[in-house]
Amino acid sequence: MKGRLYGIGAGPGDPELLTVKAIKTIQKCSVIAVPKTNNDESTAFSIAEKYLDEKEILECHFEMDKDIVKRKESRQKAAEDIIQFLDRGKDVAFITLGDPTTYSTYMYVHEIITSKGFATEIIPGITSYAAAAAALGIRLCEGHETLTILPMGHNDTIDELLNYPGNKVIMKSGENLLHVLNRLKERGYGEKTNIVYRATMEGQRLYTSIKEYEQSPASGYFTLAIVKEKN
Amino acid sequence: MKGRLYGIGAGPGDPELLTVKAIKTIQKCSVIAVPKTNNDESTAFSIAEKYLDEKEILECHFEMDKDIVKRKESRQKAAEDIIQFLDRGKDVAFITLGDPTTYSTYMYVHEIITSKGFATEIIPGITSYAAAAAALGIRLCEGHETLTILPMGHNDTIDELLNYPGNKVIMKSGENLLHVLNRLKERGYGEKTNIVYRATMEGQRLYTSIKEYEQSPASGYFTLAIVKEKN
Repeated sequence: MKGRLYGIGAGPGDPELLTVKAIKTIQKCSVIAVPKTNNDESTAFSIAEKYLDEKEILECHFEMDKDIVKRKESRQKAAEDIIQFLDRGKDVAFITLGDPTTYSTYMYVHEIITSKGFATEIIPGITSYAAAAAALGIRLCEGHETLTILPMGHNDTIDELLNYPGNKVIMKSGENLLHVLNRLKERGYGEKTNIVYRATMEGQRLYTSIKEYEQSPASGYFTLAIVKEKN
Repeated sequence: MKGRLYGIGAGPGDPELLTVKAIKTIQKCSVIAVPKTNNDESTAFSIAEKYLDEKEILECHFEMDKDIVKRKESRQKAAEDIIQFLDRGKDVAFITLGDPTTYSTYMYVHEIITSKGFATEIIPGITSYAAAAAALGIRLCEGHETLTILPMGHNDTIDELLNYPGNKVIMKSGENLLHVLNRLKERGYGEKTNIVYRATMEGQRLYTSIKEYEQSPASGYFTLAIVKEKN
């Protein structure tokens, strides 16, 4: 019998934010696949580390280059590496930071492997933005409010994104963060913007306004902003 | 010393989607507060049921009436009931379906109690929509796509909501669901709409198009739709 692929959400960083289902699934699989990218390095690995004894570890390197061909080749290679284990009847747990269905590279591998007829299953995880709101002690949304998750790529303009009504989470702004915050301030969101650096990870920092952030900024891949329509 | 209030995300329904942190926190609290509403009844309670032995259970009744005064009074009453325990040095775990910061009644109680100077902490949970996407085996969002969570109240018009660009999750459409689905179909989203009834709960149903849903519909408070911009 062929093995099964599990895509497992490891949550935002705190190992205690793994679900019971994630842990049980990791424990029953003999092979653990972990993504390696330039951004999140082996964060997913370190969250699940204490459950990985005696497991075979498969590192999947994902190319983050702007060249889509290179990115696709690396996904294909990762899928083929995993299939080698599935073909031998081994179950593979692919561990991914946050939630597998939310901006995760895992889904590319999932689709390739599902299309080849293998059984697959996704175990949802806590997102970084839910963890960030919890750490801040604020609502993401209530009542009739909408919530929009905006990934800030290099070509996005913050003004266009701010035209979305409702509350917003701005993710992955990276080098653009200061520009984004300046624009938010100009548009009157200075006091309505909360910033979280490394939610639930070592070195977490919380800011409840842009002014507060500017006094002692911490930025990087794991920084996100929660922008509320009302305070 | 005064007790501490924990707002705990119980996740979408499957008790195995509780986090380690949620379980540990429930176990260390002597009082468990559970919301009672007309909608979700005691779902949060049943998810955490096996961890509740020997605990004092406090039922918090939340009024869902259209009258905001009645709703506020019921939140105030719940907060006061909880404070009686905190004042006696007892830690209280308030269990809420899904994630506490995402459309949860818990936050009203949290704010009242925080404003009175008590220590509070929120433990994030898996949202119903992340669990629904996982069950379907589809992405909520990838790359530069935005994701908007739309709560459909009785006064919303689906057309206005559909003008949001990007992927969408339509929640709490309740009695309006058929109307919403018809409008989605008319606007060309028939094949791009996935519907999930009771994600990860007993009786879960998955549909990958509106046509499929119409052949054997299941609707209720726990039905949501994931609408993709592309298939």
